[in-house]
Amino acid sequence: MDRFNHLEEHIDEGMVMIQANLDDMNPEMTSYVMDLLFEAGANDVFWVPIVMKKGRPGMMLNVFAHRDRLAELKEIIFRETTTLGIRYSAWTCHRLGREKVDVNTPWGTVTVKVGIFEGEAVQYAPEYEDCRRISEKADIPLKKVYDEVRFRYSVMRESRNNQL
Amino acid sequence: MDRFNHLEEHIDEGMVMIQANLDDMNPEMTSYVMDLLFEAGANDVFWVPIVMKKGRPGMMLNVFAHRDRLAELKEIIFRETTTLGIRYSAWTCHRLGREKVDVNTPWGTVTVKVGIFEGEAVQYAPEYEDCRRISEKADIPLKKVYDEVRFRYSVMRESRNNQL
Amino acid sequence: MDRFNHLEEHIDEGMVMIQANLDDMNPEMTSYVMDLLFEAGANDVFWVPIVMKKGRPGMMLNVFAHRDRLAELKEIIFRETTTLGIRYSAWTCHRLGREKVDVNTPWGTVTVKVGIFEGEAVQYAPEYEDCRRISEKADIPLKKVYDEVRFRYSVMRESRNNQL
Amino acid sequence: MDRFNHLEEHIDEGMVMIQANLDDMNPEMTSYVMDLLFEAGANDVFWVPIVMKKGRPGMMLNVFAHRDRLAELKEIIFRETTTLGIRYSAWTCHRLGREKVDVNTPWGTVTVKVGIFEGEAVQYAPEYEDCRRISEKADIPLKKVYDEVRFRYSVMRESRNNQL
Amino acid sequence: MDRFNHLEEHIDEGMVMIQANLDDMNPEMTSYVMDLLFEAGANDVFWVPIVMKKGRPGMMLNVFAHRDRLAELKEIIFRETTTLGIRYSAWTCHRLGREKVDVNTPWGTVTVKVGIFEGEAVQYAPEYEDCRRISEKADIPLKKVYDEVRFRYSVMRESRNNQL
Amino acid sequence: MDRFNHLEEHIDEGMVMIQANLDDMNPEMTSYVMDLLFEAGANDVFWVPIVMKKGRPGMMLNVFAHRDRLAELKEIIFRETTTLGIRYSAWTCHRLGREKVDVNTPWGTVTVKVGIFEGEAVQYAPEYEDCRRISEKADIPLKKVYDEVRFRYSVMRESRNNQL
Repeated sequence: MDRFNHLEEHIDEGMVMIQANLDDMNPEMTSYVMDLLFEAGANDVFWVPIVMKKGRPGMMLNVFAHRDRLAELKEIIFRETTTLGIRYSAWTCHRLGREKVDVNTPWGTVTVKVGIFEGEAVQYAPEYEDCRRISEKADIPLKKVYDEVRFRYSVMRESRNNQL
Repeated sequence: MDRFNHLEEHIDEGMVMIQANLDDMNPEMTSYVMDLLFEAGANDVFWVPIVMKKGRPGMMLNVFAHRDRLAELKEIIFRETTTLGIRYSAWTCHRLGREKVDVNTPWGTVTVKVGIFEGEAVQYAPEYEDCRRISEKADIPLKKVYDEVRFRYSVMRESRNNQL
Repeated sequence: MDRFNHLEEHIDEGMVMIQANLDDMNPEMTSYVMDLLFEAGANDVFWVPIVMKKGRPGMMLNVFAHRDRLAELKEIIFRETTTLGIRYSAWTCHRLGREKVDVNTPWGTVTVKVGIFEGEAVQYAPEYEDCRRISEKADIPLKKVYDEVRFRYSVMRESRNNQL
Repeated sequence: MDRFNHLEEHIDEGMVMIQANLDDMNPEMTSYVMDLLFEAGANDVFWVPIVMKKGRPGMMLNVFAHRDRLAELKEIIFRETTTLGIRYSAWTCHRLGREKVDVNTPWGTVTVKVGIFEGEAVQYAPEYEDCRRISEKADIPLKKVYDEVRFRYSVMRESRNNQL
Repeated sequence: MDRFNHLEEHIDEGMVMIQANLDDMNPEMTSYVMDLLFEAGANDVFWVPIVMKKGRPGMMLNVFAHRDRLAELKEIIFRETTTLGIRYSAWTCHRLGREKVDVNTPWGTVTVKVGIFEGEAVQYAPEYEDCRRISEKADIPLKKVYDEVRFRYSVMRESRNNQL
Repeated sequence: MDRFNHLEEHIDEGMVMIQANLDDMNPEMTSYVMDLLFEAGANDVFWVPIVMKKGRPGMMLNVFAHRDRLAELKEIIFRETTTLGIRYSAWTCHRLGREKVDVNTPWGTVTVKVGIFEGEAVQYAPEYEDCRRISEKADIPLKKVYDEVRFRYSVMRESRNNQL
């Protein structure tokens, strides 16, 4: 297994969560800002609906990243959103090991992402884009594609276990 | 009981719910729009956080009103928000009868709003503004004021029932 | 197939959606009210977080039911919540046919609920309570139980199709 | 003005709002379902976070469309989501007239969408995709592009008014 | 007062908040995971609706616990949910002293939980399960039971204060 | 520029985020509590809708402040809300420099708040109260007032840049 489809389980104590409350930003821009933040190295970006001062509905931007990325991410938030201030605090993250496994289906191959916790595969998820492509090409419901991939992955894993 | 502190229980079949999804409006303006809509006769105005097309977080404006008010409310929404379209449908509302009762407390009088369902008082709520004024003047927690008013209202109601 | 595990696909035009906005109700009571409403014949009950007048965070109660149940459900809402008014409008519902199929697993039998759209099984869902019981008894993650049930249901369905 | 950049203001009484509560659907699939629904003629699709039976967090799918589209949209929802039932009711929509106006900026042309209410331009919005393309090409914050477009549109409109 | 109905006010600096964003988990399982986490020593578990990457509606799991519980709680989250990573940071908590007081009502005894801040009772809450049991047995609205308990608790407290 | 309309950009490492989950508080009181918290020195106060234990919809109070304010803010939360415990953790905040600039419009002067990041004006926002006052006095849509102010601010800034 080469390094492109394997990531070791690890704990990283150098993470930061950056937050900004936005009450006067055009929500059309949220996906644009998300893209810029991911390009600048954010590990995750998400929004939380909130109720702000004077009962104004607003959105809290959350950016999770390594602290090495802090300066660059702050600059993007200040330049691209309308906030006058941001806040951040230190967090630790614990990421599972990841493996990618190819699963054959009647309509083509789908990659399954497997999560490894202390050496054991505790979860797996078919790649959305692979499944979507098949769904559109073969004109079958997306959920059926997911089921088929899960089914075949289970068979594969079971037969491998039996061989051991 | 004069007409100023009594409203009969009734059912009104001529109501409309008006909705508009907003994804590019400055949320600072939401309270302003709410005020205009209430002034123009809306019975209720509220916001629902939603997830719109392309995953954009947005807000759905809901305006509940008699259909006589429809034209005027539509104009306000079109002029003051950024929506290019609104929708509405027919609803019925059922409102409880309402009575206002004065309750004496050591710090002053508080009005209690009583809801009447088929002749029976099924619920009551101290007026927020009265309680808040007392809380600030007497420097006691707002929730204590509410408790005291509820307590005294209960005593009042009980003694009245005993006299019957 | 007996009548206990089969419900025909149907459209019912006599439904109502009942709504009430609550801004001063103890949320502890929400599950209690839900139970009463289901007992009184509601088909569905759910809550939507909203932002009310003066920016107050609130909850909108939604009760979906046949209009025959309207009077009884209204009474429960008026007696058990703090609202002074409710609204409702006419809706149609379209329910899939439902079949229940037993699926054997190494740890016991699980019922799978199948949804039938125009004679075709378009979806299926393992019963949560069955899976949970197994998960607790056999001490395996709940998601593994779901996967196993889905896997065995797929095999079952495939072999049945091959026999035809 | 040709028919491609002009839509007359109109009221359509033949609309339906279709809703389904989903508590066991993979949220990864939501954008996929949205795309299918838009392709099948939905005018709008959005999601409302809700709290369902037994306190389960869920999502309510909302599809707004002409009733001519009902059968096809229902089929997509039944085939692609996990719901066992949907509901719908009759709504009216009121859409503003729409015009598209080209606005020149130092970095290229941006289309501005103008909303017309009873003959009067009551609002305008720069096209997001145009602004985004400029923002990326010229490497300037997206909000600056919006401001510039608004500014130039205002000048344009003002000078046109002065000529009349 | 024995140790079973008294907990001293205290500050604990050894707490952690653990978070995981879930976008492909069956929400039916959320209550199951909550139960496991509480059994493993979590002090609080709650969910926040969020908007994730690519505009996907998702849920953020929040687990608040002492850091001694971290390893066990992490294992549950990795085994029972579908997340590939979690994050956590250090928090302090400040808990009020707690007393339980029995209050007699015409329908039976209800326990009231009292919160003590620096020696002073700053708040109290009737136990939900006690009130619910009475409500069902005596067939009276739950909110009336709460009112009666609050009323009698206030009388009790007042008379005790007068004796001092 | 005097000290009343200028605040230097700065980073403050001594901040705390205080949180409390509330499931049995009258939401009518939320705005009252917010006001008290701001008066006691909170920099920001906002609410997040959450799903709590047993599936109860609730609200999480968030108070962001300097740690010098912690004791006083805790006391307000314990006295005015119904929570039996709060939590807090250390955060850093980064605030932009702020300048206020007066912009003349045909209907009066509006203050524009400008945000300064490393010496550069990265954003600006017309003061809501100024715009609202004009909107009401001149009876024009609020969004038109904002546009006019933005337009005139842009002209002003451009002409100033040209003079340099």
